[in-house]
Formats: sequence, C-alpha cells, structure tokens
Amino acid sequence: MDHADPPTNDDEYTRFFASEPAPAHLASVAAQVEAFVAHQRVVGRRTVLVTSGGTTVPLEANTVRFLDNFSAGTRGATSAEHFLEAGYAVLFLHRQYSLRPFSRHYTHTKDSIFGVLEATAEGQVQVNAEHAAFAHAVLTKHHAAMARKALLQIEFTTVVEYLYLLQAVATRMAESLGANAIYYLAAAVSDFYLPRTRLAEHKIQSAGAKGLDVRLDPVPKFLVPLVRDWAADGFVVSFKLETDPALLDSKSRAALARYGHQLVIANQLSTRKRVVYLVGHGGDAVHDRAENAARADSAPFRALQLPADLEAQGVDIESLMVPELVRMHDAWIATAATAKAADGEVSE
Amino acid sequence: MDHADPPTNDDEYTRFFASEPAPAHLASVAAQVEAFVAHQRVVGRRTVLVTSGGTTVPLEANTVRFLDNFSAGTRGATSAEHFLEAGYAVLFLHRQYSLRPFSRHYTHTKDSIFGVLEATAEGQVQVNAEHAAFAHAVLTKHHAAMARKALLQIEFTTVVEYLYLLQAVATRMAESLGANAIYYLAAAVSDFYLPRTRLAEHKIQSAGAKGLDVRLDPVPKFLVPLVRDWAADGFVVSFKLETDPALLDSKSRAALARYGHQLVIANQLSTRKRVVYLVGHGGDAVHDRAENAARADSAPFRALQLPADLEAQGVDIESLMVPELVRMHDAWIATAATAKAADGEVSE
Repeated sequence: MDHADPPTNDDEYTRFFASEPAPAHLASVAAQVEAFVAHQRVVGRRTVLVTSGGTTVPLEANTVRFLDNFSAGTRGATSAEHFLEAGYAVLFLHRQYSLRPFSRHYTHTKDSIFGVLEATAEGQVQVNAEHAAFAHAVLTKHHAAMARKALLQIEFTTVVEYLYLLQAVATRMAESLGANAIYYLAAAVSDFYLPRTRLAEHKIQSAGAKGLDVRLDPVPKFLVPLVRDWAADGFVVSFKLETDPALLDSKSRAALARYGHQLVIANQLSTRKRVVYLVGHGGDAVHDRAENAARADSAPFRALQLPADLEAQGVDIESLMVPELVRMHDAWIATAATAKAADGEVSE
Repeated sequence: MDHADPPTNDDEYTRFFASEPAPAHLASVAAQVEAFVAHQRVVGRRTVLVTSGGTTVPLEANTVRFLDNFSAGTRGATSAEHFLEAGYAVLFLHRQYSLRPFSRHYTHTKDSIFGVLEATAEGQVQVNAEHAAFAHAVLTKHHAAMARKALLQIEFTTVVEYLYLLQAVATRMAESLGANAIYYLAAAVSDFYLPRTRLAEHKIQSAGAKGLDVRLDPVPKFLVPLVRDWAADGFVVSFKLETDPALLDSKSRAALARYGHQLVIANQLSTRKRVVYLVGHGGDAVHDRAENAARADSAPFRALQLPADLEAQGVDIESLMVPELVRMHDAWIATAATAKAADGEVSE
C-alpha cells in the first residue's frame, strides 16, 4: 500500500509547491532519510520526526529582511533527547542555528564554552571540575546516538524549505515505518508567506520611504496532506501555541476536527516550560481520519504540569511529556495491528 | 564640554523614544558601561563600540511573530577579536544568540562542541588532539580580555532596545573618552518598525485570514543624533550592505553627506567576506560635521580585498580591516588634539 498517493490537483499545497522552488539540498536529504529509515526498519526501532525552531519568510530574493516566528527550539531539542532515551530513533528537522539535542547545553548559554572549558598554564585544555560529570554524560549520550545511527539532523531556514523537507521526510518515514512512526511537529511554522512572484529581487530601499507595506498570503494548511497522505498510519502530534489562554481549548479541538489526527499539545507562551495541555484521543484514536475528526468535541483535555520541586531541580517538562507520548504510541501501534488484521491485510 | 546636549524636541528620534518603552535592563547596562569606560580612561586604553547582529521588529506585544534582518554577527564578532588584539577595549553590543567574539568558533558550527570534546572511557572529558592548540589559544585570549576588563558584552533583541542601548552606551563613551573612541556600527538595524500604538496584544490569528497586511513606519535615522550628539568627537564608522553593487558608491556618499561622519564600510551581501569598500576621509576627516558632509563627493573610495591565498588559509577579511581602522584612528586622535589646542581648550 502506497500511502503517498499523489494529491488531487486542486489542493492549495500542490499549487504552493508548483510555484515555490524546492531547496537545493532536497535530493541529498531525501537520500539520507531513505537510508536512515531503512536502517530503523531493519533494527526494528520506532522513529520520531521532531520538527523544531521557527521558519522564516524572506521579503527579498537576496535576503536581507525576513519575517520570523519566535522559537529557540527548546521544546524540540529537549524532546529529541528524551525520545532517544526512550529508545526511539530521531529525525530532527530544525531551523539552522536553533537549539539541537545535546549541544543545546553549550550553545545558547551566556558563557557558551567558557563556562565549561579552561586553558591550563601547561598549554592544555580541560573541563572545569564542576562541569566534568555533566559534560561527560552529554558527550556519551550524543556519541551513543550517533554510533547507533539513531539521530539524523536536517536543517531548514525558510517556510518553503520546511514544507518541502517535511513532505520528503514524512513520506519516506510512512512508507517504511507506518504506525511505528511519530510525527512530533514542534516547529513554529509561519501561517503566512510572500509568494515568489511578489518577492523583491534586491534589498528594499528605505530612502525617502514613508514606511513599508508587506502583504502576505496564507500558507496552505500542510496538516491536511500530512495527515491524509504523507504520514499515513503514523501517530501525529501537532502543537498549538497561543498567548491568550482563552483560545487554547477551542483552537485545539478545531485542529482535531479539521485534520482528524491524534493529539494536539497546546501551550501558552508565558507558561510553556511549566504546563502543557494534551488534547485528543491520543493512543485511543481510531485509524480513521473522518471518525477522529467527528469525535473532536469529546476528546480529553488534560493538563500536564511540572511540579515546582522538579522545576527547581532543573527537570524539564519534556521529561514528563515524552513518556506519556510513548504510552499513547504503544496503544496506537497495538490498534494499528488490530485494524490491519481486521482489514485482512497481511502484516509486514 | 558636555557632548550629550539634549536634542531639540522636534527631532523624530525624540518622538520615537517618547513613544516606545525603554528596555528593562537599561539602567543596569548604563551602570556597567559607566564603570567600564571609567576603567578604560584610567588605564588610557582606546575603546571601540562594536554593534553586531540583526534587530527584530515584533508584530505582537506577546511576541510570536517578528521581522528580522539577516545577520549572523560574523563581521562584528570577528572585528571585536581583532580590536582586542590591537589593544582596544571592546564594548560589544550584540543581538542575543548572534555570534560573539571567541565563542563564535564553537557555537554556530555544524558539530558545535562535539567536534572538539570527547568523553574518555575513564569518565573524563578531553579536547581532541587536533583542536587542542586552537582551543587553548581561543580560551587564553578570551580569559585575558576578561581579566584585563577589556571586553563588555551587552545584548539586544528588538530595534527599540538597540536604539535605547546605543544612546546609553555612546553618550557615556563620548563623555569619558572623546576622540579615543571608535563607533563601529556593524549591526543590521531595521529601517522600519511597528509603533507600540499599533502593536497587536496577542498572537495574530490566521484562521480564515486572506493574508496578513503589515504596515511599518520608518525608523528615525539614528546616525543624525549619534554623530551630532551621542558620539561627539568619536570616530564613527557606519556600514552599508547592499545586494545590488551598483548602489554601493552612491549610497555610501549619500550617507557621508547626510551625517558628516568619518567612514562608511560598504559591502555586498554575496561577497562581504572577501571584499569591502572604505568610503570616506577616515582619519583625514575634519572635526566638523558640516565640512565633512560637504566633502562627501571627493571622499576616497577604496576596495579592500582578501587575497585568495589568505582566504584559503582561513584568514578573515576583518584582520585587514581593523589595522586599517586603527591607522585612521591614530590620525583622527592626532588631529583632535590639534583641533582642541587651536580652540584653546584645555586637554583633560
């Protein structure tokens, strides 16, 4: 069964891909992803796609100015570490220079490596005594993930690159891994973009300008083709970030009703490191988009809160989120097998 | 003589500051800068303000979306290292998470610290043999700069923060250091901003939206008050980045004619790491804004190009730019003393 059926031509994202150029590294990324997912299939390892960081919308072809979405990439990079800890392979599709698993502990800090390394009078470099044990643990985990071929990192910058790469990665994961894949879409993807046909060639001149008027088009809702075609049979988790808490519940259910996927993780900008809301049937979702969508109103809404004492110890909320998702994924895989058996399909 | 004369009330930047809120850390930054420049004055050390990285323009008060200017901060961070090497103190006013002097060698690289550090089987952490000498040199230079109190790093994110901090830093430098200060304005500052009065409180909703229409106002030309009031007597270097090479000469001269400062460093987006153009009278500029402005058409235009063999060895173009600026600054300081003596002023 080929899940990546060609979409019908009237789809807005088909027009989007037809008019926006593909990133130069698309073919090489696709080849890397194919090898990576083939390996996970051979070793029988569940795999999660973690998207992370914000996308840009260039306002000029030779880009000086661009629109961006706030995201350091903490959620994605931290979650990736916990998924690896839980035995998953991680495809980490991230914004260039955003936080990455493991290295995040040393890149976006005030002191960078200078809080950790020191030069000795004898011309050597050593790790400060207070950081040695932690640095050793981080390096060992990173090395183990790479040695097991369990971590593949792919960069994007613009929203167009992101959507091309998302399609390329998700279709290959779905093809090889089916229900054994989680799609954990934590990237902050722009809702708007500037079509190539309206893009200024050179830097917009400011001299004498009364101001700048930027008119952006809506980005097609890529969760439609992702849930329907690209990531078929997979466990799809989308994120909803709001600054107004009154919108969290209604907007999360609206997403479930629209796309028929398994889970929305909703969070508020100001409290996102202490509390998230899990909205959806999760592992109890049925393997039928329309039915899931119809049940959106009755989907559980559950807060997951990091206890203050754990927060004070530096524990991150992703250490609670990921095991919860793994349990849901267990149930999802179990019902996928049942659904296949009921359909009379032969399990691969 | 107090160089930070209050500007007249009809100035556009005065209205800008009156309507946009000051950053919360302004007072603490001002106190740090005062102590820093007082120290440089006592030890008789020339000081350079290096601004670096792009500024943001938030589109929402609880910011999810923002406009940004492309800049990793390579020019500023690299130049800062060379200024320190040349014996200057450096005030590094930079975009949060952009490249910083010394740590830049380890933060925005593909491998981050994993290309440098390795965990041993004995539970220790060590620097790879191939990186040890370089890392030792970087750590030693960073440590020496901090120990000599020659480096102060200050962060900004938004264009409003940047302008408040620029004023606070420049006025204090000018007050203490006069002609002994260089203002090296390499930050990529937005020409446009969204006034607070038009800022959306919460995340702009996309559901059902036909698109997004953003109308931005021009940012006041802060080089006017900087050259006239804030950085008086200092050696001011502005940057001009264009993607269209045909504009480099005319736009650089237009800036000199408008502001009457000492030097424009012009560069093209695609070749900025190999060639820059120095436009202006530099150290031969007179200490009179109007006269400098009137001579803009006759100002030298000189290309500074990194030879291909040096580029291949990993030498950066800033290693040529900074010594050139130091020579100009020598001449500038010499004529400043002459100008003061001619004015009958007593040197402090």
